[in-house]
Amino acid sequence: MTLPRIGISLGDPGGIGPEVILKSFAGGKDLPPARYILFGTAAVLEETSRELGVRPFWRREENTPDPSAPGVFLEDVQAPAVLAQAAGPSADHGRASFRYFEEAVAAARRGELSAVVTAPISKRSWDMAGLAYRGHTDYLERFYPDAVMTFWSERMTVALLSHHLPLAEAVRRVTPGNLARLFRVLRGSLDRIRPGAYEILVAGLNPHAGEDGLLGEEERRVIAPAVEEARRTGLRIRGPVPPDTVFREALERPEKVVVALYHDQGLIPFKLVSFDSGVNVTLGLPFVRTSPDHGTAFDIAGKNQADPRSMIESIRLAAALAPGVF
Amino acid sequence: MTLPRIGISLGDPGGIGPEVILKSFAGGKDLPPARYILFGTAAVLEETSRELGVRPFWRREENTPDPSAPGVFLEDVQAPAVLAQAAGPSADHGRASFRYFEEAVAAARRGELSAVVTAPISKRSWDMAGLAYRGHTDYLERFYPDAVMTFWSERMTVALLSHHLPLAEAVRRVTPGNLARLFRVLRGSLDRIRPGAYEILVAGLNPHAGEDGLLGEEERRVIAPAVEEARRTGLRIRGPVPPDTVFREALERPEKVVVALYHDQGLIPFKLVSFDSGVNVTLGLPFVRTSPDHGTAFDIAGKNQADPRSMIESIRLAAALAPGVF
Repeated sequence: MTLPRIGISLGDPGGIGPEVILKSFAGGKDLPPARYILFGTAAVLEETSRELGVRPFWRREENTPDPSAPGVFLEDVQAPAVLAQAAGPSADHGRASFRYFEEAVAAARRGELSAVVTAPISKRSWDMAGLAYRGHTDYLERFYPDAVMTFWSERMTVALLSHHLPLAEAVRRVTPGNLARLFRVLRGSLDRIRPGAYEILVAGLNPHAGEDGLLGEEERRVIAPAVEEARRTGLRIRGPVPPDTVFREALERPEKVVVALYHDQGLIPFKLVSFDSGVNVTLGLPFVRTSPDHGTAFDIAGKNQADPRSMIESIRLAAALAPGVF
Repeated sequence: MTLPRIGISLGDPGGIGPEVILKSFAGGKDLPPARYILFGTAAVLEETSRELGVRPFWRREENTPDPSAPGVFLEDVQAPAVLAQAAGPSADHGRASFRYFEEAVAAARRGELSAVVTAPISKRSWDMAGLAYRGHTDYLERFYPDAVMTFWSERMTVALLSHHLPLAEAVRRVTPGNLARLFRVLRGSLDRIRPGAYEILVAGLNPHAGEDGLLGEEERRVIAPAVEEARRTGLRIRGPVPPDTVFREALERPEKVVVALYHDQGLIPFKLVSFDSGVNVTLGLPFVRTSPDHGTAFDIAGKNQADPRSMIESIRLAAALAPGVF
């Protein structure tokens, strides 16, 4: 078996991304054997490693004779000059973090990576850099409109029907076509990860899952028929389940994947129980993409206070899922 | 100080209400001293106590010479003949449970009770009995349109802006007037319970609380101005806070009362962390009303399997809040 090749984009240089990446590798955290390729700029890594008192451990990939050997390598991306310790969002950091991500995705699209782990970017920095994308997933959806945002931890697994939309708009996106597309992606991805292991629980949209139409019609008109249709194709799926009990049912049972119909329906319970160790996994792509579920945390960046747990879990999950998916 | 007089309505005779009430008093659970008046029918209590092997411990109130002495008394309500062990919803049980509740509320409205604890009714039974109300709170709102549904446990406190509405409709109810009314009720009630002890955190409606208008306008147009207005009146209040972090911030800090803008925004996190011990408290009434946050649980009724913890907490909280509020 060849080792997985896992790309890791450094994220916003002014955020905690470089720090948690270095801490993940430097701390003897027992990461799975793989060929890890950091997408970033040497200056940012070097400055961060000095601040943390970590000896540089990465090499240039062109300097290694065996392209299948394990190790950590730097892909030095052409990007604006940046200072890691600069506080807050900036246009240069927006451009740089976009370039790291863009290059990692391009390598994955060329088949050179089986997974991409993305450290947090700042939407504000991207905006200041004039970039039209709202974030990693928004960018990926341009190439892969079926991309599905999911959240994984040891305590809970959640898949979102929609994500960064106003709530009123998200309600209108609960349609037969969107549900069918989501269920199709889940069936394909979950079957490759661990065949037969997962059951899908679909949350209702309205209180008590509509209570037989008394509290909303979407369950009877849209959700129940879509679930029934998916079940007929062989998916282990159930719902609509009352939203205020389905997450309780799925708690501590990560093989029960809850489909949440809007951002906060899924993220409120997920973050409540998995705050420090949650991983964001994008399904429906031809490669695995994971990322920690925290942001740039500008307020603690450069202070050696960032907790690398979510990044470590992101790297582990990327390595675990990559061979299954591809 | 006179003892609080606390009414307890038995709920649907076919559900677990009578069982959890008897278990609360019979188990040596150390309930606070009060004069407890059970609103129900003798036959239901007697049958349930036989099933549970509990000796009847209640008396008829007219048989006690001192109306301020502690103890447990039965107010035998005129209601259809019912059998406790009947399975599932029924019209007779709907009528009976409505009558118990109606009499308890009437007594509270006459000033004879400082608190009412309600065991679960079945909306289906009420419907079969031809009753137009969707539940306890719906009924109370006819008399008290400012009634606010709140949920209390040792781990979290949540107040709902709206409750049993389709989600699309709930989104439309996020208005300046509705927010101002809710904040006014909270200010009045919380100040009487423990002056100065509570801080109110208002959740946003949209992902990331709208992210400066990018993901929704309600935060800037409606919620932030309403919070600002309430703060000027002296309320300790903050928001809108991103929905997927506000519950994490309030976890294990029950003095931080989260205002949720729709049913599931509040109930998903609350039930996830407080499933067995949550208490529903209606504020904005001239008396305290609490109830366990579970339903009739017809599937386990009559089997001596029901867990009385939430009922015990409901009784305790009623006794704790009653002297403060009135």
